[in-house]
Amino acid sequence: MEKRLWDHVQRVRQQSPLVQNITNFVVMNNTANALLAVGASPIMAHADGELTDMVGVCQSLVINIGTLDNQWLESMLQASATAHRSGKPWILDPVGAGATRYRDNAVSRLLALRPTVVRGNASEILALAKANSGATKGVDSRATSGEALDAARYIQQRYGSVVCISGEMDIVVGEGPLVYIRNGDPLMTKVTGLGCSATAIIGAFIAVSSDTVEAVSAAMGLLGVCGELAVAVSAGPGSLQVNLLDKLYNITEEEFVTRVRISHEA
Amino acid sequence: MEKRLWDHVQRVRQQSPLVQNITNFVVMNNTANALLAVGASPIMAHADGELTDMVGVCQSLVINIGTLDNQWLESMLQASATAHRSGKPWILDPVGAGATRYRDNAVSRLLALRPTVVRGNASEILALAKANSGATKGVDSRATSGEALDAARYIQQRYGSVVCISGEMDIVVGEGPLVYIRNGDPLMTKVTGLGCSATAIIGAFIAVSSDTVEAVSAAMGLLGVCGELAVAVSAGPGSLQVNLLDKLYNITEEEFVTRVRISHEA
Amino acid sequence: MEKRLWDHVQRVRQQSPLVQNITNFVVMNNTANALLAVGASPIMAHADGELTDMVGVCQSLVINIGTLDNQWLESMLQASATAHRSGKPWILDPVGAGATRYRDNAVSRLLALRPTVVRGNASEILALAKANSGATKGVDSRATSGEALDAARYIQQRYGSVVCISGEMDIVVGEGPLVYIRNGDPLMTKVTGLGCSATAIIGAFIAVSSDTVEAVSAAMGLLGVCGELAVAVSAGPGSLQVNLLDKLYNITEEEFVTRVRISHEA
Repeated sequence: MEKRLWDHVQRVRQQSPLVQNITNFVVMNNTANALLAVGASPIMAHADGELTDMVGVCQSLVINIGTLDNQWLESMLQASATAHRSGKPWILDPVGAGATRYRDNAVSRLLALRPTVVRGNASEILALAKANSGATKGVDSRATSGEALDAARYIQQRYGSVVCISGEMDIVVGEGPLVYIRNGDPLMTKVTGLGCSATAIIGAFIAVSSDTVEAVSAAMGLLGVCGELAVAVSAGPGSLQVNLLDKLYNITEEEFVTRVRISHEA
Repeated sequence: MEKRLWDHVQRVRQQSPLVQNITNFVVMNNTANALLAVGASPIMAHADGELTDMVGVCQSLVINIGTLDNQWLESMLQASATAHRSGKPWILDPVGAGATRYRDNAVSRLLALRPTVVRGNASEILALAKANSGATKGVDSRATSGEALDAARYIQQRYGSVVCISGEMDIVVGEGPLVYIRNGDPLMTKVTGLGCSATAIIGAFIAVSSDTVEAVSAAMGLLGVCGELAVAVSAGPGSLQVNLLDKLYNITEEEFVTRVRISHEA
Repeated sequence: MEKRLWDHVQRVRQQSPLVQNITNFVVMNNTANALLAVGASPIMAHADGELTDMVGVCQSLVINIGTLDNQWLESMLQASATAHRSGKPWILDPVGAGATRYRDNAVSRLLALRPTVVRGNASEILALAKANSGATKGVDSRATSGEALDAARYIQQRYGSVVCISGEMDIVVGEGPLVYIRNGDPLMTKVTGLGCSATAIIGAFIAVSSDTVEAVSAAMGLLGVCGELAVAVSAGPGSLQVNLLDKLYNITEEEFVTRVRISHEA
């Protein structure tokens, strides 16, 4: 299995997919650098006059609502509708879902365009499900990991999306058995936007694979393993950000397969 | 006194205040990372549809006019009005005040919402006072440090804001005696946006303290001391930016209290 | 010749020109840091209410269309028209020209304002010429280096711009003999926005020199040499970005003149 995940890493390096991103201002630079480091080719564009063309030339699309406003939301909707129509894989990162009604409305509209993957933390996934299930159909407001899992299953069944709940342990929810990834380091939460990097890297991986659950698992495993290796040589979050990009670029198969901790639901 | 300032540093680490930022595109990433490094929780949002909600859940607000335009100014006014109404501490960074009439008009409107703190360099503070004093009531156009101090006192008295004039020596102007902080290094001016980081860090400190002058002094002392320690291990401005984030994250009480150089007006 | 190029580097350090930038969200931070590292003073502003004032106080203007939209395009047009009218040097970076019709229309409008310099890769320069030559007047759609050179000559003759085609070998196309610069390292393509940094650095160099071809050559040589020296001490693209800023700041005359590889058309 570890070896199969590595094949995904290799495929991105070899095929260098073009990934179109509409993401937030805070992380645009990191995101582009993370995509370059794993071997993908990032594009960042958001003008309504060119989005259809841009999505057309790309192999996948990343939508991240971090610094959302009305103009950018329209761009996100246009781009994801284009991806949806043309059967192009796309991923939604519902940053801050649950924090405001404004965000909940936005993610509901995006979710209706059936993202190939949704990646968020437990509370964001829960908020997403709540915002889309009318009242509270079986989804509660306190985010325990069990509830987030129920929420993920709900989204998966209703929209067909593979859902990745990221946290100390990442859980990938598809049609089959759950996948658990246990990599990463707490220091990674002290660097802004590594969740956004995870989303973008998944965006690159689903561009070159039709096994979405495995592609998501490989991407999360890669970031987690590289994070661990980078933390080991970092004095704090500043150097971690730098060392992580280096490691995403130069990680070897041996480093990856010996360190990635992946398992399946029994 | 040095020990008391360290208590502020500790309090931010322990309480991890939620700090809402409307800041400029150039520094958003650094600002978020600086806030994370000192132990705070940054939020960056600017849509008018959610600002009231966002300010509501945060402990403080940071407004920085760097890459200002009309849409963002409206967001800044809405957010700071919300903070003002609810008695929530907020800080204004009048980047580039004095450079254009457009900026001067913007800062005047923001100042009317009575920021808890204003932080800028001598010429920005002077421009701020000029823009708000009609003709030139005792404030002249050449920015000597004495004039900036007069300008700061004017703002303090008229708007009740604590004013921090940053420079080789930082001066904190409140109702009581002036506070002087003599830390930092000239290389810090070769990294973009460290003034903006100072403002954001102050934003975190005033979120968890009601002694604003002391909180501002602690924040400026922290950035200055960390800057000195980071410069000592840096080959240039690139590595300084990285090492500074590391040091903000891992500075110890001993490093801080032995190095911070703070004094009061006699 | 190498010595003469170094004089340009020195002049920027001594005169610290004020460079106004309207650039893309992805690279704003790097661009500002690159300008600071070479000794220039970056300004980033885009509001229509202040652009004329801002361009007025600056020594040069940088326009980069990376994350273009209609609002930003209007700002770019306003700023470059102001620069054009007042005879202030300005540089255009046509990021992604050729990718969409939207971009081609935008660069055509900007080109009509006669940039002092245009810098792009071969396919961008080719797209630029095509978009401005009606049908295909002698410019073909496949970007060979010969075709890009024809395209550059076309732009140079029609708009009077010095054109820099960057790539493994950079070519500077002015009225006189071509200049070739053979510096840099492939790892530089794995850091986002180093082309944008090149454009901004050229913007600083043309602010303090009237020999545009030489200023462009010096700027490209500087970035290439610093890139090589930085790669030599970097583990990957993360550390390269950091080390490059350090080297732009502390490169010595000897490092530069012994390493820069510049030649002229016979």
